[in-house]
Amino acid sequence: MSDLSIISPQILRTVGRLRATTSETEVRLRMQPQTERPMPQRLRGECHASRASIEALWSKLREMAPTTAADQSVVADPQTLESADAYSANIENMIGTVKVPVGVVGPLRINGLHANGDFFVPLATTEAALIASYARGAEIASRAGGIAAAMLIEGVLRCPGFKFDSLIEAGLFIEWVTRSCAELKAAAEATTRHGKLISIEPLMDNEIVFLGCRYTTGDASGQNMVTIATEALCRYIESHCPIRPKHWFIEVNFSGDKKSTYLGLITGRGRKVTASIVIPRALIEKHLHVGIDTILECARMGSVGALLSGQIGAHGHYANALAAFYIATGQDAACVSESTAGFTRIEPRGEDLYVSVTLPNLLVGSVGGGTGLPSQSANLRLLGLQGPGKAAALAEVAAALCLCGEMSIIGAIAAGHFARAHKKLARQRCRKC
Amino acid sequence: MSDLSIISPQILRTVGRLRATTSETEVRLRMQPQTERPMPQRLRGECHASRASIEALWSKLREMAPTTAADQSVVADPQTLESADAYSANIENMIGTVKVPVGVVGPLRINGLHANGDFFVPLATTEAALIASYARGAEIASRAGGIAAAMLIEGVLRCPGFKFDSLIEAGLFIEWVTRSCAELKAAAEATTRHGKLISIEPLMDNEIVFLGCRYTTGDASGQNMVTIATEALCRYIESHCPIRPKHWFIEVNFSGDKKSTYLGLITGRGRKVTASIVIPRALIEKHLHVGIDTILECARMGSVGALLSGQIGAHGHYANALAAFYIATGQDAACVSESTAGFTRIEPRGEDLYVSVTLPNLLVGSVGGGTGLPSQSANLRLLGLQGPGKAAALAEVAAALCLCGEMSIIGAIAAGHFARAHKKLARQRCRKC
Amino acid sequence: MSDLSIISPQILRTVGRLRATTSETEVRLRMQPQTERPMPQRLRGECHASRASIEALWSKLREMAPTTAADQSVVADPQTLESADAYSANIENMIGTVKVPVGVVGPLRINGLHANGDFFVPLATTEAALIASYARGAEIASRAGGIAAAMLIEGVLRCPGFKFDSLIEAGLFIEWVTRSCAELKAAAEATTRHGKLISIEPLMDNEIVFLGCRYTTGDASGQNMVTIATEALCRYIESHCPIRPKHWFIEVNFSGDKKSTYLGLITGRGRKVTASIVIPRALIEKHLHVGIDTILECARMGSVGALLSGQIGAHGHYANALAAFYIATGQDAACVSESTAGFTRIEPRGEDLYVSVTLPNLLVGSVGGGTGLPSQSANLRLLGLQGPGKAAALAEVAAALCLCGEMSIIGAIAAGHFARAHKKLARQRCRKC
Amino acid sequence: MSDLSIISPQILRTVGRLRATTSETEVRLRMQPQTERPMPQRLRGECHASRASIEALWSKLREMAPTTAADQSVVADPQTLESADAYSANIENMIGTVKVPVGVVGPLRINGLHANGDFFVPLATTEAALIASYARGAEIASRAGGIAAAMLIEGVLRCPGFKFDSLIEAGLFIEWVTRSCAELKAAAEATTRHGKLISIEPLMDNEIVFLGCRYTTGDASGQNMVTIATEALCRYIESHCPIRPKHWFIEVNFSGDKKSTYLGLITGRGRKVTASIVIPRALIEKHLHVGIDTILECARMGSVGALLSGQIGAHGHYANALAAFYIATGQDAACVSESTAGFTRIEPRGEDLYVSVTLPNLLVGSVGGGTGLPSQSANLRLLGLQGPGKAAALAEVAAALCLCGEMSIIGAIAAGHFARAHKKLARQRCRKC
Repeated sequence: MSDLSIISPQILRTVGRLRATTSETEVRLRMQPQTERPMPQRLRGECHASRASIEALWSKLREMAPTTAADQSVVADPQTLESADAYSANIENMIGTVKVPVGVVGPLRINGLHANGDFFVPLATTEAALIASYARGAEIASRAGGIAAAMLIEGVLRCPGFKFDSLIEAGLFIEWVTRSCAELKAAAEATTRHGKLISIEPLMDNEIVFLGCRYTTGDASGQNMVTIATEALCRYIESHCPIRPKHWFIEVNFSGDKKSTYLGLITGRGRKVTASIVIPRALIEKHLHVGIDTILECARMGSVGALLSGQIGAHGHYANALAAFYIATGQDAACVSESTAGFTRIEPRGEDLYVSVTLPNLLVGSVGGGTGLPSQSANLRLLGLQGPGKAAALAEVAAALCLCGEMSIIGAIAAGHFARAHKKLARQRCRKC
Repeated sequence: MSDLSIISPQILRTVGRLRATTSETEVRLRMQPQTERPMPQRLRGECHASRASIEALWSKLREMAPTTAADQSVVADPQTLESADAYSANIENMIGTVKVPVGVVGPLRINGLHANGDFFVPLATTEAALIASYARGAEIASRAGGIAAAMLIEGVLRCPGFKFDSLIEAGLFIEWVTRSCAELKAAAEATTRHGKLISIEPLMDNEIVFLGCRYTTGDASGQNMVTIATEALCRYIESHCPIRPKHWFIEVNFSGDKKSTYLGLITGRGRKVTASIVIPRALIEKHLHVGIDTILECARMGSVGALLSGQIGAHGHYANALAAFYIATGQDAACVSESTAGFTRIEPRGEDLYVSVTLPNLLVGSVGGGTGLPSQSANLRLLGLQGPGKAAALAEVAAALCLCGEMSIIGAIAAGHFARAHKKLARQRCRKC
Repeated sequence: MSDLSIISPQILRTVGRLRATTSETEVRLRMQPQTERPMPQRLRGECHASRASIEALWSKLREMAPTTAADQSVVADPQTLESADAYSANIENMIGTVKVPVGVVGPLRINGLHANGDFFVPLATTEAALIASYARGAEIASRAGGIAAAMLIEGVLRCPGFKFDSLIEAGLFIEWVTRSCAELKAAAEATTRHGKLISIEPLMDNEIVFLGCRYTTGDASGQNMVTIATEALCRYIESHCPIRPKHWFIEVNFSGDKKSTYLGLITGRGRKVTASIVIPRALIEKHLHVGIDTILECARMGSVGALLSGQIGAHGHYANALAAFYIATGQDAACVSESTAGFTRIEPRGEDLYVSVTLPNLLVGSVGGGTGLPSQSANLRLLGLQGPGKAAALAEVAAALCLCGEMSIIGAIAAGHFARAHKKLARQRCRKC
Repeated sequence: MSDLSIISPQILRTVGRLRATTSETEVRLRMQPQTERPMPQRLRGECHASRASIEALWSKLREMAPTTAADQSVVADPQTLESADAYSANIENMIGTVKVPVGVVGPLRINGLHANGDFFVPLATTEAALIASYARGAEIASRAGGIAAAMLIEGVLRCPGFKFDSLIEAGLFIEWVTRSCAELKAAAEATTRHGKLISIEPLMDNEIVFLGCRYTTGDASGQNMVTIATEALCRYIESHCPIRPKHWFIEVNFSGDKKSTYLGLITGRGRKVTASIVIPRALIEKHLHVGIDTILECARMGSVGALLSGQIGAHGHYANALAAFYIATGQDAACVSESTAGFTRIEPRGEDLYVSVTLPNLLVGSVGGGTGLPSQSANLRLLGLQGPGKAAALAEVAAALCLCGEMSIIGAIAAGHFARAHKKLARQRCRKC
C-alpha cells in the first residue's frame, strides 16, 4: 500500500481538485478583506411594507443586482403588492413573496384530545413524492380508525445566564430567587396577556447560574413572548436583587431555541405531543405491500442506525412533515431544527403493528407569528384550526402527520419501493409522464 | 414540605388542569379508533397540476372542509393558477401556493473561494426583526471588508443497511465490497449524469453492515440523486454478491438524512463550508453598541450553555438564516434540521474580534429541487447564483449569512437589546408604529 | 485514482490482513457454537469467602486453567487469606486480591464547604506519570491558597419503566402517582434508614411512563439503596394502583446508572459538586513554564475539540482522577463511566487564570460499598474521610482533585511537555533511570 | 398553588437545608483562599519505589495526616514492601497497594477469532452480586455453546490541533500533509517498535486543523505509545513544514482519550470488538426464569430509555464488566469511561433469543501498562492471555464478558429479581447469612 493511502479518498480528492484549479496567489487574492472597493448603497426599506416601498427597493436592486423585470414581477406580483401591508409586521426590507406550492393530504382521521375529526392538511413543499407519501400514510391511518393523539405538557423555555464573582454569590442568588418567585412571576407576566411563568429552573456551573424560565404561551408558539417576559424578569432582578452579577445575558445558548438539544428532548420545550395507532396486519399488507415482520426488522435496524449516527431521539423524517406543515400554516420554519427531536416506536401488537411518535419539542401556534398572513391563515382555516384556542389541536395534527410519514416511509423502505417512488414522481414526471 | 412537593410544578399543573376539564370517559371516547363513522372521500389530484386539477380539488374541499371562496382565492390565486404546470414536478395534490414574505439583505460583501462580490440576499420569513438583524450583521461585515468563505469538502451520504446470518457473512460481504468497488461505482453512477460515488464506508455492528455511500452531486443538493444511485448499487449487490443478506434496506436512520447527527457533524454531509471575519473594535462599538470584552464574556457563557444543553455543535441560531434562505431559494426546508449542525467561534484577535462559522452538513443546490420554480429561481437570479456551476457559491453565501446572524445576535444580547429589538419590530409595529 | 481508493485505508488494511492470515473455513470452524465439547466443571465458591473457600477454588483452577502456584501465592497472599472474611459481603467466588499500587498526592489545600483543610490524597493507578501530574497540580493549587469547592445538590436517580395499554392509562397512572406521593414515599423509605425519596419525575413516551425516582442516600453512594427502595415503591404500585401496567421493569436504561448520559449531565445524578481557583500569573509561569495566553489558546481549541468529538460535557481527563480515587477509596470503579461527565472552564480573571470544574454526576460514599475493606478504609482514614458524615467532603475532594489534573495537563500540553512527561516517567524509568 | 411551587422540590430542599445549617459569613470564611496558613511539607517520594521510600513517606504521613500504624500495615503490607520495585515504573510517591477482591467467573466458552476455548475470568470489584451475575451469564452462554466473538478493527487515535493565521494556511497545511505522508509516518514510527501509523485524518474548523493520527499499537493498549509517536510527528512538522501554525498542541480534547465520545463510537478507538450468541428458549426459561417475550419487551423499553436519556450507544452496564476486568488484569481503569460506549442488541431469532454486543472503543493490552505487575500478570495468566500476541483475544474476552452481563441483567430485570439479587447478596450477607 502506498504512503498516500493513509489519507482518506475524500480528502485526497478535495486537495487534488483544489490544487488543479486554483493557484495559491489567486486564492489569497480572492479571500482577503476588500476595504478599498466601494460598497453599493445599503438597502433600507420603509418601516411599513407597501407597494411603493417594494417598488422602491426593486428599482435599486435592478441597478445593483443581476435581476430582471421578469423576476420582479414574479416576486412582487400584483396580489402581493396589493396586500403588502398585511406582511408589515412580519418582515423588513420586503421585496415580495416566494410562492411555495401547497398540496393537501386528507381526510386524515385524528382521535385527539384536542384535534378530533377528519382533517384536510395543507403542506407546502418543493420535494416531489412528499405529499404522495403522507397521503398514503393518512389513508392507511384513517382506514385503521384514525390516529390517537394528545398534547401532554407545554412550556417554552428561555434561559438567561448570570455570572457572579464566585460560587457563594451564585448560591445566594439562587436563594434570593426562591424567595422572590412571586415578584419574578409578576414581573414576567406583566408583559403578556397570555404567557404564564410556570417554573423557574436554576442550574449552576460554579459561579454561573442558568435560570431556566418556562412559560405556557396561550395559543402562540411564544418564543417572542417568553423573550420579552424574561427580559422583564431579568430587569426586576437587576433592580431588586442585592446580589449583583458581573454579567448577565438573556440568552446564552442554553434554552435550545432553534437548536436540537438533549435538554429539549428530555425536559420538553414548547408543546410535547404524542400520537399512536394500531394498524391491522391486513391493511399493512394491502397498502404497503410488505409483511409486518419485514417492517419490524427494518425498524430494529433503524434503531441501531439512529443510535450509531448520534441522532437526538430516533425517527425517520419528522422534518419533512414539520417543514411542510410549518411553512403552509405560518409557523416559524426555523423551529423545524428543534421540533424534529423525538421518538418513533414501531412494535408488534399481537398480530398487528403499533406505531407511536412522540415529539417533546414542538413549537406551534394558532395565533401570532405568520399565522395571520393571507395564504397562511387560509391554510389554517382549511384545516379548521385558525385563531385562538387551537394551538393544542395544531400540535396534535403535527404529531399525527409525522406518524403518517413514519409509517409510509418505513413501508416504502421495507417493501423496497423507496427509491422507486422518488424516481417516478420526481424524475419521470418532469420529463412529462 | 408537603408530600405533593416531590412532584415538579409543571407535572402537577398539567395533571390538575386535565382533571379539571375532561372526564376519563370523555377522553376514552374521544381517543378510541373510529372505524364506524364514514370517511369523507379521499382526495386524489391529477398526475399533473393544472388550473383544472386545482379547481377540482377546491370544489371537493369546499364541500368537506371548513374553508371559503376567499381562502381559495388567496391560496389558488390567478398567478398560481396560470403557472400551475411549473409546479407539477414538485408537488402532488396541488391546491395553490403559500406566499411567504421575502425581504432582502445586502449588499453583503463575501470574499469566497466561489462566492466573490457584493450580494443581495433574499430571505423568506415570517419572524419580525429577523431581516433587520441579518441586515445589521451584513452591514458590519461589509464595512469590515467582507466575509472570507470557502466550501471545504462535499459528499452526500446514503447508508443502506444489510443484515446477515452472522458476523462471518458480514465480514465476507465487506471483503467482497472492497473487491467490487469498480463495479459498484459503475452501477451507482450509471443512474446519474452528475453524481459521483467518492467513497464507500462500511461500518459493522456484528452481523449488520451499514454501507456508507458518499457522493458528490454536482450542483444539486442531491438527496434524491444519491437515493437512486444507491438503490442501483444495492440492486447490483443483490444480483452479483455471493453472500446473501437476510435483509437489506436502502435507509435505516443512519445516513443523517433530515436529522441532525453527530455523524454529520464529524464526517460532514452535503457541503462543508466555513466563513470568517475579523471585525475592528471600533466597528463593533459603533454598530453593536457594546464592548468586545462583553461579547467575549457572552460567547464564553454561550459555549457552556451549548455543551450543557446537549446541542450538536454550538451556535446561536443558524436555523434562522438557513430556513429563510432555503425557503427563498427553493432548497429543501426539511434539511434545515440537519444543516444547522455546526460551530460558531468568537475569539479575540489582537484588539479586534474574530468570528468564524463552520457548517459541515449543508444541503444546498443551484439546480434541482425547488430551484427552478418561478419565484424561487427569480430569487436565485437576484442573488446571481441560479443554475449550473453555482452550488459551491451558494453554500458559501449560506455560511456568510449565518455569520452575519451570529454576530448580530451576540451583539444584541451582549448589549442588552435582544428583547428590545423583538418588542419593537414585532409588537409595536403591528399596532402601527 | 484507482477504484480501491474509495475505501478507507483502515478498512482495506483490516480486510487485507484477515484474508492473508485465516481461511474462511477456519474462521467458520472457530466461531461456531461448541455444544459437543464437554464443559469444565462450573466454579462455585462458598457463600462466605474464607481461606478454605479460596484455596478450594484455586485447587480447581490449578487443574483447569493455565495458572501456577506462584500466581496463586500472589493473588491469594497470606494477608488476603487471613482477612478473607472481610471481603465476603463484596464479592463472590473470591480467589484473592489484586494489588493496585497507591501513590499519595498532597498536601492539597481545599477550602470546601465540607472538605476544609490540607489533604493527603491516596490514588491507585498503574499509569506512570499520573501521580506526578496530580501532585504538580496540587502543589500549584495549594500555593495559590487552595481550591474552593462545594457540593451543590444530591440525588441518585432510579427509573423504573411502566408500559400501559394506551396513553390514557399512562395518563391516569401519572395522575394516581401525584395523588399517592405520600404512600409511595413511605413505601420506598421503609426499606432504608438513610435514603429519602426527594422527587418523583414522570416522563412519558406515549403509553410508556418512566418514573424517575430521585433519592438522597446519606453518606453512601447509594445505587443499591435506591434500587431496593424503588423496588418497594414499584411493589406498592403493583398492589395498590388501580391502573395496571402491561409490563413494568425496575430499570430500562434510563436512569444513567453506570453510563454517561445527557440526563445525568443536565439533571445531575449522585452528588453535583464544583471546585474552582484563581491562580496568579506568576505561579503559572514558574510552575507550568508557559504563559497564560498560551493556556487560554489551548483551552479555546479544547472547547472546539470537545464539541466536535461529541463529548458529554467538556474536560481533559477527569477519568484519570476519578478512577484512581475510586479504586483507592473503595468506591464503585464502574461509576467512573458516569461520573466523568462534566465541565472544565479555563478563563482569564484579570491578569490571572481562573479554573473551574463542575461534576454533576459523582457517585461517591464514605460508607457502604468497598469503603469498609481493609486497605480501602485505611486510605479513607489517611484522607480523614472515613465513615459517616464524610460523603459530601469526599465529593469535594474528588472535584478538587479533578481540578488539579485539568490544570496540570493543560499546563503540560500548552508548554509542549505532555509527551515528554510520559516518555520520561513511563519509558525511561522502566529501563532503570 | 403557592408561588414557591414554581421551583422544583430538589432545589427548594437544597436551599432550605443550606440556609438552616450555615451562615453566609461562615461559608465565606470557609471558602476563601488560605494563603496565610502555613502549608505542611510537600511529599516527594524517591524516583524508585522501595521499602525505604515507602516507609519514609509513611513516617511523614503519620505526622501530618490522621492515619495510624494499623493503616500503614494494611496498605504497605509485607508482600507489597518486598515487591515495591516491581511497581516503580507504574507509580510515583508510592505508599503501598490497595487490595481489590478478585472473584472468578467461568468456565466461559468463547468461540472467538482469537480467544477460543473455555476461560476462567478474574474480575476485581467491591460490588456484591456482580460476580454472581456474570457467572450466571457465563453459565448460560457456555451451555448454549459459547459466545462468538471477533475483533473487527483497531486503531488508537491521537489528535493534535494546529491553529493557523487563516483558512488558507490551514488548507495549504493539509495539502502539505497529504504530500508528506511517508515522512510523517517514518517520524512517528521511529519512536516505537510496535506502533504503526495507519491513517491521518485531517478535520478543519476554519483555520484550525485537527490531525487525527490513528495507530495500531501491537499488543499494548497504546495510549502512551501514540502520544510519543504523535509528538515526534508534530516535531517533524515543526521542523519541516513551510506553513507555520500560530499554535499547536498535541491534544485538544478531540481524540476521545478517556472520554466517551460520538467520535469514538462512530470511528472506533482502540480495538473494535463484537460478540454474539443465540440462546435457546428453553435455556432462558430454565436459567433466567422468565419468558423470551418479556425479555424482548424489556429490551424494547431499554432502547427507548437509552435514547431518551442521551446515552452514547445503548447498553445495560458494560462498565461493570470492564471496570472489574480492567482492574484485575492491569488495564488502565480510567479508560472505562471511553470503553463503555457501545451497543447491545437483543432480538428474537426464530423461537430463540439473539444477543449481540459491539464495543468500538475498547482500550486493552496484554503487554505494557499494569499488565506486568505481580497480581495483575498472575490474573492474566489465569486467563491464559498474558504477554505478547494476546491483545486481540483479550478484547474478545472483554466483549464476551459484557455480553454475559447484559444477558444476566436483563434476565434479572425482566424476571423481577434485580433488586432481590442485590438485597440478598449485598445486604443480608453482611449481616451473616
